[in-house]
Amino acid sequence: MASFKLLLLPGDGIGTEVMDEVTRLIEWANGTGAISIETETDLIGGCAYDEHGEAISEAAMQTAHAADAVMLGAVGGPKWDGVPYDKRPEAGLLRLRKDLQLFANLRPAICYPALAEASSLKRELVEGLDIMIVRELTGGVYFGEPKEITDLGNGQKRAVDTQVYETYEIERIAAVAFDLARKRGNLVHSAEKRNVMKTGVLWNEVVTKVHKDSYSDVKLEHILADNCAMQLVRAPKQFDVIVTDNLFGDVLSDEAAMATGSLGMLPSASLGAADENGMRPAMYEPVHGSAPDIAGQGKANPIATIASFAMCLRYSFDQGELADKIEAAIANVLDQGLRTGDIAQKGCKTVGTREMGDAIIASL
Amino acid sequence: MASFKLLLLPGDGIGTEVMDEVTRLIEWANGTGAISIETETDLIGGCAYDEHGEAISEAAMQTAHAADAVMLGAVGGPKWDGVPYDKRPEAGLLRLRKDLQLFANLRPAICYPALAEASSLKRELVEGLDIMIVRELTGGVYFGEPKEITDLGNGQKRAVDTQVYETYEIERIAAVAFDLARKRGNLVHSAEKRNVMKTGVLWNEVVTKVHKDSYSDVKLEHILADNCAMQLVRAPKQFDVIVTDNLFGDVLSDEAAMATGSLGMLPSASLGAADENGMRPAMYEPVHGSAPDIAGQGKANPIATIASFAMCLRYSFDQGELADKIEAAIANVLDQGLRTGDIAQKGCKTVGTREMGDAIIASL
Ligand SMILES: CC(C)[C@H](C(=O)O)[C@@H](O)C(=O)O
Ligand SMILES: CC(C)[C@H](C(=O)O)[C@@H](O)C(=O)O
Repeated sequence: MASFKLLLLPGDGIGTEVMDEVTRLIEWANGTGAISIETETDLIGGCAYDEHGEAISEAAMQTAHAADAVMLGAVGGPKWDGVPYDKRPEAGLLRLRKDLQLFANLRPAICYPALAEASSLKRELVEGLDIMIVRELTGGVYFGEPKEITDLGNGQKRAVDTQVYETYEIERIAAVAFDLARKRGNLVHSAEKRNVMKTGVLWNEVVTKVHKDSYSDVKLEHILADNCAMQLVRAPKQFDVIVTDNLFGDVLSDEAAMATGSLGMLPSASLGAADENGMRPAMYEPVHGSAPDIAGQGKANPIATIASFAMCLRYSFDQGELADKIEAAIANVLDQGLRTGDIAQKGCKTVGTREMGDAIIASL
Repeated sequence: MASFKLLLLPGDGIGTEVMDEVTRLIEWANGTGAISIETETDLIGGCAYDEHGEAISEAAMQTAHAADAVMLGAVGGPKWDGVPYDKRPEAGLLRLRKDLQLFANLRPAICYPALAEASSLKRELVEGLDIMIVRELTGGVYFGEPKEITDLGNGQKRAVDTQVYETYEIERIAAVAFDLARKRGNLVHSAEKRNVMKTGVLWNEVVTKVHKDSYSDVKLEHILADNCAMQLVRAPKQFDVIVTDNLFGDVLSDEAAMATGSLGMLPSASLGAADENGMRPAMYEPVHGSAPDIAGQGKANPIATIASFAMCLRYSFDQGELADKIEAAIANVLDQGLRTGDIAQKGCKTVGTREMGDAIIASL
């Protein structure tokens, strides 16, 4: 029986509540006899800062390196607005991404049929929507140097961020996007601002070359990031896979997720390069954040995190069947008319985090 | 009678067609006897490159400096995809913005009542929508240095863009936003990524200080740019004024404009600082682009450019009454059921650029 090490990092806000439901799913998975998942739990984000004075401890980083995969809840909250920049909750998340070299962030924007009505967009525009946003996650303006604030005197300061991309970084994320497209709708949109940014020029050039050299069977469209933001509102179903840089990916994936009406439902995977044994470092987390406004109330929707665990089973633990079962159970409880507050709907029953977890487990 | 110099830069694609309608509105304005507008016309963008090998000529730049205001159509198109980076169509627009120091880009996102149905968003979410996006236009990643691509050998290149903001740049754009908010809904959202970018940290700090020192009567909210992209889809009416940097402003204003359903209708103003006489350099242009796919077919919607001219009358030429009249005429032809193709609607009459211009003039 395959055995894996999984690090759980519930984090802040609703992170702990939704991760509680995942631990029950892990028990279920172990109970099937198909797999043995050993978990460790550690701190990340604001709670790690409160405990260790760092957004993630060295010990937790070592556990992450040693684990087969990491599950993350969420980080951040107003409580830590005043902490020093390099110790803020997000720093833990960014360090994990960078140190584990999780360069490929996969963010599906799917409209769950039962929730088409919950979208702000008209039903016909989102029904059946299924976009995969492939966001570069270890480069760009997130990590480029210099990144600093200089005091110029006279009450004036000067802040600098640097967006850097090298050819190889664009090549590998483009390959991920094209590979995914082949298994989906065979269409990739590459979004950048080549009309203003040199990184956009290089991005465009490299994606074009990767396409020509190795993926000419896939349809490739180049789109300016501002136009992409428009088109995601106008006609999101025109997209299949969107590949874009770290910062545009941050904004566009959130926009797309919200457009589906299923934000509280959407999982994500952040993957590194495969080693000789085909194992790749991986982290799974919901697309939504720590939602400090509803934290601690047992109201949060655990589905995005549970669906992230399903992705973990599929991509890191090679347990596609178990993943299918969890995804079917999610669809099933939605069909039964159960909803958490974020997706509350007339004629449906509004339940809390724990009840939603119960229902999914019962359905399994 | 007040007399002004206006430089017309129709540019590329549908730019020339929509500007033709504005020239007729200028005749109308001159005919009222309230004002005397003297125009010059010059090239910008791809057509300027074809003629002069530059996206804007020195002569045109001089005329722009000497003019009281500039009206721009649109620049760019696939024809110029291959031209050198510093001569691409957009370079002309960027040079104008930078050399005239047009640091404040005002982009209203308004839902015209007659068009609420044309939005992708549900009617109740956009009906009555009236957001003003205040985008910083002469700083940030658009102009920061270094901005370059370096060949590293071995088929590898390294591209760099630099986002820079100094305190005074943020102070002056924040003041514009707060001043506008006072005349509107008294609410400003300041959007940045302070959790990732040092320019976001400084942006947040300076906006907070300007607010505290001089505008504490206005309500200020800080919002992360990715969350802002979400909220513009989820519940756009929560916003009044949004102030943000050059790049986020590019993406968020396009998203907001598309959400209104009125993209082809939306004007914009780019303003510099006022001199001792209260005159400020100014450029007015539609939010939409050059639409190469429909260029030359007489189909383009001229309303955004006509509405931009109304803004010019109001802000640069102090002719609020004439501006009101033009805006009323636009509303009037919409009420009559006239629509260009982009806003075509069942039960309405689809007309071309010229007919739409005719109808607006007739209504005046
Ligand atoms: C929390 C924050 C640093 C992060 C990001 O900007 O990448 C988040 O918005 C995300 O999209 O995962
Ligand atoms: C044409 C382009 C350079 C420009 C920009 O990115 O600023 C456009 O998208 C805009 O928003 O005015």
